[in-house]
Amino acid sequence: MKSLKLLTIGAGAALLPTFVLAQEAAELAVDIAEAAAPSFDEIGPYIMTTLLFLVGGFLVFFMAAGFAMLEAGLVRSKNVTMQLTKNIALFGVASLMFWLVGFNLMYPGDFNGYIGGFFNITVLEEVGLDAADADLGYASVASDFFFQLMFVAATASIVSGALAERIKLWPFLAFVVVLTGFFYPISGSWQWGGGWLSEMGFSDFAGSTVVHSVGGWAALAGAIVLGPRIGKYKDGRTNPMPGSNLALATLGTFILWLGWFGFNGGSQLAAGTVGDITDVGRIFANTNMAASAGAVASLILTQILYKKVDLTMVLNGALAGLVSITAEPLAPTLFGALWIGAIGGVIVVFAVPMLDKLKIDDVVGAIPVHLLAGIWGTLAVVFYNSDASLVTQITGIFAYGIFTFVGSLVVWSILKAAIGIRVTEEAEINGLDMAELGMEAYPDFVKG
Amino acid sequence: MKSLKLLTIGAGAALLPTFVLAQEAAELAVDIAEAAAPSFDEIGPYIMTTLLFLVGGFLVFFMAAGFAMLEAGLVRSKNVTMQLTKNIALFGVASLMFWLVGFNLMYPGDFNGYIGGFFNITVLEEVGLDAADADLGYASVASDFFFQLMFVAATASIVSGALAERIKLWPFLAFVVVLTGFFYPISGSWQWGGGWLSEMGFSDFAGSTVVHSVGGWAALAGAIVLGPRIGKYKDGRTNPMPGSNLALATLGTFILWLGWFGFNGGSQLAAGTVGDITDVGRIFANTNMAASAGAVASLILTQILYKKVDLTMVLNGALAGLVSITAEPLAPTLFGALWIGAIGGVIVVFAVPMLDKLKIDDVVGAIPVHLLAGIWGTLAVVFYNSDASLVTQITGIFAYGIFTFVGSLVVWSILKAAIGIRVTEEAEINGLDMAELGMEAYPDFVKG
Amino acid sequence: MKSLKLLTIGAGAALLPTFVLAQEAAELAVDIAEAAAPSFDEIGPYIMTTLLFLVGGFLVFFMAAGFAMLEAGLVRSKNVTMQLTKNIALFGVASLMFWLVGFNLMYPGDFNGYIGGFFNITVLEEVGLDAADADLGYASVASDFFFQLMFVAATASIVSGALAERIKLWPFLAFVVVLTGFFYPISGSWQWGGGWLSEMGFSDFAGSTVVHSVGGWAALAGAIVLGPRIGKYKDGRTNPMPGSNLALATLGTFILWLGWFGFNGGSQLAAGTVGDITDVGRIFANTNMAASAGAVASLILTQILYKKVDLTMVLNGALAGLVSITAEPLAPTLFGALWIGAIGGVIVVFAVPMLDKLKIDDVVGAIPVHLLAGIWGTLAVVFYNSDASLVTQITGIFAYGIFTFVGSLVVWSILKAAIGIRVTEEAEINGLDMAELGMEAYPDFVKG
Repeated sequence: MKSLKLLTIGAGAALLPTFVLAQEAAELAVDIAEAAAPSFDEIGPYIMTTLLFLVGGFLVFFMAAGFAMLEAGLVRSKNVTMQLTKNIALFGVASLMFWLVGFNLMYPGDFNGYIGGFFNITVLEEVGLDAADADLGYASVASDFFFQLMFVAATASIVSGALAERIKLWPFLAFVVVLTGFFYPISGSWQWGGGWLSEMGFSDFAGSTVVHSVGGWAALAGAIVLGPRIGKYKDGRTNPMPGSNLALATLGTFILWLGWFGFNGGSQLAAGTVGDITDVGRIFANTNMAASAGAVASLILTQILYKKVDLTMVLNGALAGLVSITAEPLAPTLFGALWIGAIGGVIVVFAVPMLDKLKIDDVVGAIPVHLLAGIWGTLAVVFYNSDASLVTQITGIFAYGIFTFVGSLVVWSILKAAIGIRVTEEAEINGLDMAELGMEAYPDFVKG
Repeated sequence: MKSLKLLTIGAGAALLPTFVLAQEAAELAVDIAEAAAPSFDEIGPYIMTTLLFLVGGFLVFFMAAGFAMLEAGLVRSKNVTMQLTKNIALFGVASLMFWLVGFNLMYPGDFNGYIGGFFNITVLEEVGLDAADADLGYASVASDFFFQLMFVAATASIVSGALAERIKLWPFLAFVVVLTGFFYPISGSWQWGGGWLSEMGFSDFAGSTVVHSVGGWAALAGAIVLGPRIGKYKDGRTNPMPGSNLALATLGTFILWLGWFGFNGGSQLAAGTVGDITDVGRIFANTNMAASAGAVASLILTQILYKKVDLTMVLNGALAGLVSITAEPLAPTLFGALWIGAIGGVIVVFAVPMLDKLKIDDVVGAIPVHLLAGIWGTLAVVFYNSDASLVTQITGIFAYGIFTFVGSLVVWSILKAAIGIRVTEEAEINGLDMAELGMEAYPDFVKG
Repeated sequence: MKSLKLLTIGAGAALLPTFVLAQEAAELAVDIAEAAAPSFDEIGPYIMTTLLFLVGGFLVFFMAAGFAMLEAGLVRSKNVTMQLTKNIALFGVASLMFWLVGFNLMYPGDFNGYIGGFFNITVLEEVGLDAADADLGYASVASDFFFQLMFVAATASIVSGALAERIKLWPFLAFVVVLTGFFYPISGSWQWGGGWLSEMGFSDFAGSTVVHSVGGWAALAGAIVLGPRIGKYKDGRTNPMPGSNLALATLGTFILWLGWFGFNGGSQLAAGTVGDITDVGRIFANTNMAASAGAVASLILTQILYKKVDLTMVLNGALAGLVSITAEPLAPTLFGALWIGAIGGVIVVFAVPMLDKLKIDDVVGAIPVHLLAGIWGTLAVVFYNSDASLVTQITGIFAYGIFTFVGSLVVWSILKAAIGIRVTEEAEINGLDMAELGMEAYPDFVKG
């Protein structure tokens, strides 16, 4: 009905005495319009971008299930209940911390560029917000909070996979408190909160560095402080400890792949213009291409290297493709997404045994996938985004690396000294499920 | 192109002889506008709300998979095929009954406030609906039917979990026919169909009572009539009968959590204004917070009470958080959602052993999660929604409770007397899968 | 802000000297408007349809996980890793081939109606597309590519299930290259690319024939060339080889059902008018009804025929219901969707043993579900779509059948002669997982 009102006003304006000045007429018209309901031209972009955050957000939320299934599938059956518990618990903790501290620490508005104010609890806009009070150039605060919250949860999930099968539950959750409440939001503010790295021109569209490498650095520090699983490296050999359920691991990978459309697509942060929604489409297509290319690259490479395809490598290849394209999913052509993703898949195949050589025991391959492919993706931005410079990209990679790795080393070491982070040898051998939780994941099946 | 037309009309109106009365000019303008295609200001809200129902609907649909996985994971391996069969079958039956009877019984339009007309089959609008024939203030009938249908299926899923491992397939489905075709739609009409409870001011935004407690009451009646599983309560002790696949149970919980964004968010029933879409965002954020808080509360509480975290309690804690916020996911602050959800998690931890004391055998914890947290959530509405009164909330809780519990008791008793609802002792001991269906869920694995 | 501009212009127009001709004023107004930003009336439909493709596309993407879980659940545990590997690998290959060849071969624009030009790599629109350069009557190319790509992947997934447990990985992937790069796009262009069958009036809304029967024909040809599994048909009897994980099979079915809302709903190809979005809602409701009816039909029929419900038949019944409604999910009433879907469920129950009689070994029932129900759905179009003729529908069915079946027979035969398509007898008996990949899916569980 609003167009009729406009029209009536227009017709009325036509009847104004001709001696009224044009200026005055225009002011009157503006006054009338401001009193009327807003048109879709005004509110459409806000509605669409809010919707983008909600749909993108629930897709990224579902990545929590993806990580849980991937990790439950890649640990041995005696540690599955614990891995599941860690995954749902870390999500809960991340939600609470990001509300309590993280969101406003990460997006502080005006700040010194390095660190914002603490303990600024998240407050949503009022119920039934009036259009006049909304930030019509962006989206609802609640939808933005919802979307951003899912990213911090993903960061924590990365850590849980690498440290599986030997870390205690509560020290792990204590680390998650620090990571999701402080490390991630503080370093995140440098780029997405308008801090010093964004000022410098660092480019990381959806978080190859801000999310994935941060999770990877935290995992690496943890893996070093924690040490490898008993028997993993013995007599100079790496003993395979195969995952107990590759069907779940594959399901988890597909769920993560699905969620990544929200992860990268939602990071366009706008969907209400032709240019923005078209860009979101481009991001979806590129994201899918990078994942496909990563999977195929690992498939072919494991066949060539080992004469046998390795499914866990193919799964991690797809994920590495996804991480690789996350720093710049928009600018590349489909062919660009293909080769950037494929290199991600190649990185995984070479990095997994390399980490084993270094006796860094990463149960699910989180460090190759999220840290190394994350670094690669951040560097690869320069190939298609002419605004990015290699020096700045490297600066950003180092800044996030040093801050997160050193900070994590400190926290892990404190936790180790204060309360211990590793289960007893007996508990590790018998499995964390019975020893720590008293509950098996698959109690009916006889184990081999 | 339509804005050009408007503009041309406006310019034309400017040239009208000044002796034409303003009134006439306005009428002319209205006539011209009515002949033109509708503008987005007119149709945008309808399109957005229809989209909300479709997206919300497919999310709630997916909860069917969530319930199936949760229940398949929490029953013993010898009963998994049966539990899966019940879940997919009940969804099919719910779809048919809601089309045949339920939808128009639940949303009868003008009626006496207690019961509408029966056997009013659902009819969708015609293909290629013209905007002039659409209810532009709401959404498409088909999308509304699709969305509401998913709620009735969820109600039935609640029952299947509680009565698992001993109820026969066909009597269970006979009950589902009554529940989804009659009990749920009739009682639902009291609130969401504009009946006596909505007149009275009862408040239940997305169905803590209308959906969850109704499912819970039906399950409670069934559990009483059916009796506990053989060996569950013996010599004054409760024997744990651990679920066979906690990975699936966790997956199911995450899927339910995901679906709940559609469940609560879609219940805003509008998405085409700044206020509405912002509210949907607020609902998403609150829903996630309540689930997180429920999970964390159960996590901490089981650690304190039992010195060990109990994953099944954490899963049910998250679900109880979700049920608790469902009666009012919009009005609370994030902190409100936190403590309302956390109390849901606490309820579960205390209610599960309490039910066992009463020898009410609820296999998956559906009664604590859906009935008790549903009651809690319905009461908690009064803390943040100033329009709600405690007396009316309690009235609603009792009305749904008495109607559903008594009605279900009668139907379960008739079914028991007429055809029997429980499998033979031998079938129960050997497992329903082989005895009733002749098909194991995991035939390759040796059972312990 | 745009409505204010319009209004100001209108008010300004009112002040033009009255001796300016109406014609000139209108032209001026149009000039000014063209210079301004486009209104939502112009761009809204493009944005909504692009969004439809993105949401529909990620739902259809998730069907890849559905197929993977369905197939992993229906093969024996010794072949699960291989089945998972095939599923993720085929998706990667399909993505690459559809980008490299398929998309522009399937949608060639002007062409002879039978075959378009080869090696026309997919190019997306530029970043930050201007509204003036967009096809405002449709959607973004990238979103369209993303959506259509998911369909070709589904086609290939159909084949992998039928040929499970005995086909080698690489020859299978070689076939996928041909299917996804050539067979599917060429035959697809006949209908959806504006080719001879669409000219003739063939009707296949979302692909009962174009997608599902094509996958089914390719699978049938493969099953014939490949031969049945060792021991499947012996001494005139069919030996059941039960699936190893019915929970995963059920999960896969629910995921496919979910994805089908995108499959059929997205195929409306428009969502920006009242008529279009209402139609999408109608398609969602009909799709759900057909799946429900297919499941219930199989449930009842297996109870009657075998005195026991067969879960795998119920799952395939739901899928057959979905395939049946796919050729025309819009025109039927809900009752139409019910009986069309139910007949799909009936077809599956009778066709599975019939195929076994013919010693065609289809591991997951893909041929009954996708080929036979696909043919049925294509024929059933004539009942509700008055534009469709039975003769044309049959012509289309035969055209796709002959082209795909003969083409596939040739390719399978060449692959068989050139490199062999079947694993060794020893590998088949020991399981493809250890023999071909050296990796079990469930290494911890003792197998019976």
